[in-house]
Amino acid sequence: MSLGAIRACMGEIPFDLAICDVRLINVFTDEIYHADIGIAGDQFAYIGKFQREHQAIQTIEGWGRFAAPGLIDSHMHLESSMMTPAAFAAAVLPLGTTSVAADPHEIANVLGVDGVKMLCDQVKDLPLHVYVMAPSTIPSAPGFENSGATITGTEISEMLGYPGVHGLGEVMDFFGVIGGDPKISGVIEAAHRRGVLLDGHTPLLKGKELEAFVASGIDCDHTYMDAEIVGEKLRNGMCVQIQERFFTRELMAYLNSCPVQNRIMLVTDDVPISRLAAHGHLNALVKKAIALGLEPKKAYRYVTINAADRLRLYRQGAVAPGRRADLILLDSLEEALPSLVVSDGKVVAEAGRLTVPLKPAPFPPRAYQTMHIAPVREEDFVIPCQGSGALVHVIVQDGKTSRTRLEQQSCPARDGALDPGELVKMAVFNRYPDNDNRAVALLGNLPDFGGAIATTYAHDCHNLTVYGRDDRDLCLAANTVIASGGGIAAVRDGAVLCAIPLPIAGLMCEDDLPALAGKFREFDQIAKAMGLNHEEPLTFLTLMALAVSPNVKLTDLGIIDVTTKTFLPLVVQYRP
Amino acid sequence: MSLGAIRACMGEIPFDLAICDVRLINVFTDEIYHADIGIAGDQFAYIGKFQREHQAIQTIEGWGRFAAPGLIDSHMHLESSMMTPAAFAAAVLPLGTTSVAADPHEIANVLGVDGVKMLCDQVKDLPLHVYVMAPSTIPSAPGFENSGATITGTEISEMLGYPGVHGLGEVMDFFGVIGGDPKISGVIEAAHRRGVLLDGHTPLLKGKELEAFVASGIDCDHTYMDAEIVGEKLRNGMCVQIQERFFTRELMAYLNSCPVQNRIMLVTDDVPISRLAAHGHLNALVKKAIALGLEPKKAYRYVTINAADRLRLYRQGAVAPGRRADLILLDSLEEALPSLVVSDGKVVAEAGRLTVPLKPAPFPPRAYQTMHIAPVREEDFVIPCQGSGALVHVIVQDGKTSRTRLEQQSCPARDGALDPGELVKMAVFNRYPDNDNRAVALLGNLPDFGGAIATTYAHDCHNLTVYGRDDRDLCLAANTVIASGGGIAAVRDGAVLCAIPLPIAGLMCEDDLPALAGKFREFDQIAKAMGLNHEEPLTFLTLMALAVSPNVKLTDLGIIDVTTKTFLPLVVQYRP
Repeated sequence: MSLGAIRACMGEIPFDLAICDVRLINVFTDEIYHADIGIAGDQFAYIGKFQREHQAIQTIEGWGRFAAPGLIDSHMHLESSMMTPAAFAAAVLPLGTTSVAADPHEIANVLGVDGVKMLCDQVKDLPLHVYVMAPSTIPSAPGFENSGATITGTEISEMLGYPGVHGLGEVMDFFGVIGGDPKISGVIEAAHRRGVLLDGHTPLLKGKELEAFVASGIDCDHTYMDAEIVGEKLRNGMCVQIQERFFTRELMAYLNSCPVQNRIMLVTDDVPISRLAAHGHLNALVKKAIALGLEPKKAYRYVTINAADRLRLYRQGAVAPGRRADLILLDSLEEALPSLVVSDGKVVAEAGRLTVPLKPAPFPPRAYQTMHIAPVREEDFVIPCQGSGALVHVIVQDGKTSRTRLEQQSCPARDGALDPGELVKMAVFNRYPDNDNRAVALLGNLPDFGGAIATTYAHDCHNLTVYGRDDRDLCLAANTVIASGGGIAAVRDGAVLCAIPLPIAGLMCEDDLPALAGKFREFDQIAKAMGLNHEEPLTFLTLMALAVSPNVKLTDLGIIDVTTKTFLPLVVQYRP
Repeated sequence: MSLGAIRACMGEIPFDLAICDVRLINVFTDEIYHADIGIAGDQFAYIGKFQREHQAIQTIEGWGRFAAPGLIDSHMHLESSMMTPAAFAAAVLPLGTTSVAADPHEIANVLGVDGVKMLCDQVKDLPLHVYVMAPSTIPSAPGFENSGATITGTEISEMLGYPGVHGLGEVMDFFGVIGGDPKISGVIEAAHRRGVLLDGHTPLLKGKELEAFVASGIDCDHTYMDAEIVGEKLRNGMCVQIQERFFTRELMAYLNSCPVQNRIMLVTDDVPISRLAAHGHLNALVKKAIALGLEPKKAYRYVTINAADRLRLYRQGAVAPGRRADLILLDSLEEALPSLVVSDGKVVAEAGRLTVPLKPAPFPPRAYQTMHIAPVREEDFVIPCQGSGALVHVIVQDGKTSRTRLEQQSCPARDGALDPGELVKMAVFNRYPDNDNRAVALLGNLPDFGGAIATTYAHDCHNLTVYGRDDRDLCLAANTVIASGGGIAAVRDGAVLCAIPLPIAGLMCEDDLPALAGKFREFDQIAKAMGLNHEEPLTFLTLMALAVSPNVKLTDLGIIDVTTKTFLPLVVQYRP
């Protein structure tokens, strides 16, 4: 309790910060009205017309701008920005995001509990409030891939006891949950023992399967949403967290019509850095949702009080006495672009610019040593074939999404090796200690792709993943990334065209948003010039190794049919 | 996590209990639709149309009745029933109340932390789920009364660590909160340290005083409510808990119009036993609210999911997979009278009758030894006066409410003592160890009252309180109650007309509802026959000693002007 807030409210001591004449969005009553706001320390102390006895040390003129609570992202992953938490905070605070629930699923795949603790240590003094969710499903597909760690109930208990860990991150092994798998059941049990909230990930479940999943106590989802799915999930008592890619006019009309609104949120999940630089963060979702017809006051509730209630942050999500003084001022509800951002009672951004010093803190040295892999050789990419050719399984990408389909094609052989012709090689090298697994597959629908691209940012295991047609280029791209301690590299005709080191766990670097976004703009142009025909090169490159993403993917253990959970051989049949 | 619920939902094992064909009130979507309900253990497992693979050990036919979640009373005091928790549970379960948040403020005034622990021990195995709130404001008016205990932050910490204690009970010292009083600030701090919810009591606060109170982190109230007050409290982020006595058509129309509904609840606070027997419990509030125009689905949400969310009971308040299987079946939403009640997956009542054994458990012996007071004597009621009379302060009751007003009157003296004439004597005797405080006052507007009534149920200190005109009857009534270890007695012309022992802390007895309600019906008749002209005799008798209830009351320390917090002498001036 802050006696300061009480005394300032009563007019006995001055406010630390006063904001005069705003149009307050009251998320508890859906009203918008003129008010003054008094802040003491890091709390709102008084909201209303200032009285004679109210004084303030610092006063900001609101000029009738809208005042909303600071925006709260109730489900996201910090690592997808590829920046340090401090650089991410510097990027999103000016956009109005003051709190995030972050599931460090990526760094946990690389560094396990140790990585999660590193992230907690990084975020603890940021003006962006980061609530870390203990990653629950690592690896994502046990038995079908190897990452740097395995998380069981024991690790969950340990993480939930670490300062800053707030709940259980999205449980993705939904078949394990409804099948009673001991490992994921132990994870869920550990969370229940701590009494924390549990996040879910249920893209395919409906009917009794969905209900069985919810019966585990996991009560939210952020995967595919349309009106029918939102309706079914709400009916089951779930919180629905809606990502931008599922926004439609129809869905917004449906949300407007829901009589009970408090279990609906908008979330970013993953925002690639180029999108963050070009479009914004949670504010971009608010803007787009309103443009598609969502009532503005509902949009703001979805990313403030609803998110706070979901996250059990009882002193956040609203501009009200005693609550944490996180606030944004806006000229237009529809534009959702803050002209002033206050976090914990301090002005942290004005007119889109950060006003507080925020330097990336270094991670501990072991975070920079995650490439446990010797340089690769050209022969690692050769697919041996003793006959005249083979019938092979081909993973066919669609140029737009992360979905793939399976085909079979004939390939000729030359000098004891397959000649893929129009197909492109994809290889996954395990990069973790005491493991030299590797696997090669062939990709279809990349007819013009030349050269090679390697990346260690490759969901969810983040093994070294390489794409290309030429074995020498494949080898150079892979070794360039190994040499830089992780990252992304594009190579053509024996020359490195672009290299972006991501030395922190092979996932992040210390650049700020403008610098890193610039590098990725260049990378995107190079990838397109190399003939990579996917709409979002990075989406393609980072999701082809994801063993829980339909329909066929490649891990360090081989080709996986994701829907049937079976391994597929590369060669179906050799031709004599 | 219950694997049983998951497996039963999937049809792999039978439900323990199936209820076929109900009209489900879905509190998440405000829909009502036909469904079957499958229960496994103490959890809901499946809600929908049963599929071929679903089997059940026991099946109940719903016959299309409405199914609502078990009712949740988010603010009440168990002791006002004057029954043991087990007898209270037996009384309210058939009425549909399956969970209560109980603030044992009364027993804590008598027995302190020890009394709260006794109550926790009593409730822990009941089919009624009781969430004990640590009493925060004991005594209610420190310095102006003496009860059996003093609660500071230290005791709050101790109680919040005891199994079954759920949050901080209503903070009533609102002037202390906004004035920064160290004792109540310490109490609030102790609750914040534990991260629990904090209940409030703010009958008079508005504007900046209300905001200062809310700034302490206390975010609910259940005192006087009308549309304007509800609006102001909601705007400040408070939960509003509305008692039956504030229900009006205007208020219900206002509640219907609120765009954000999830912070509104209906609560019983105190239900006197006669009212409980005649009208019901939370179900009576639902019925009355609907009769006054509240939309039925809103009424049910106010006493189910809204209450569960307020109390942070994330697995209650709804008929949904994984939630605690508390449910009622109803023929009519408007009548709100359950024909079947399920608690923790077990049928506990049918057609208004309890179907499970529920015997009152004895309290420990020390709970029966709370009358630390020697027999009183007639001279204890004499008001000495050496002159010919005196001008005295008179507490004038209004015959309807607990409010009083102050008057001054002249009284003659006879044989060295005041002769009150039409006035009635009221005396308060401290009944706690090492304290023999006592005080006498005079009451106005009781012209026909004869005989005497004594009670140890007398808010909030529950000292022995006696009302009457004849010193001999006063003495007999007081000593009858002392001899029975606490309770209520009515005496006239030297004869005990009625005595109801309340030997448990002087507040409760081991009777069940029919037996005790019968006794109080008789007591009410006797009190009226004795000329007690108050509409609700028990309300009058138990609230005249309440030092936080306007405007003038009597405690063991003397007459209190409640609004100015000052003592008043009985005699203003002696007449020579």
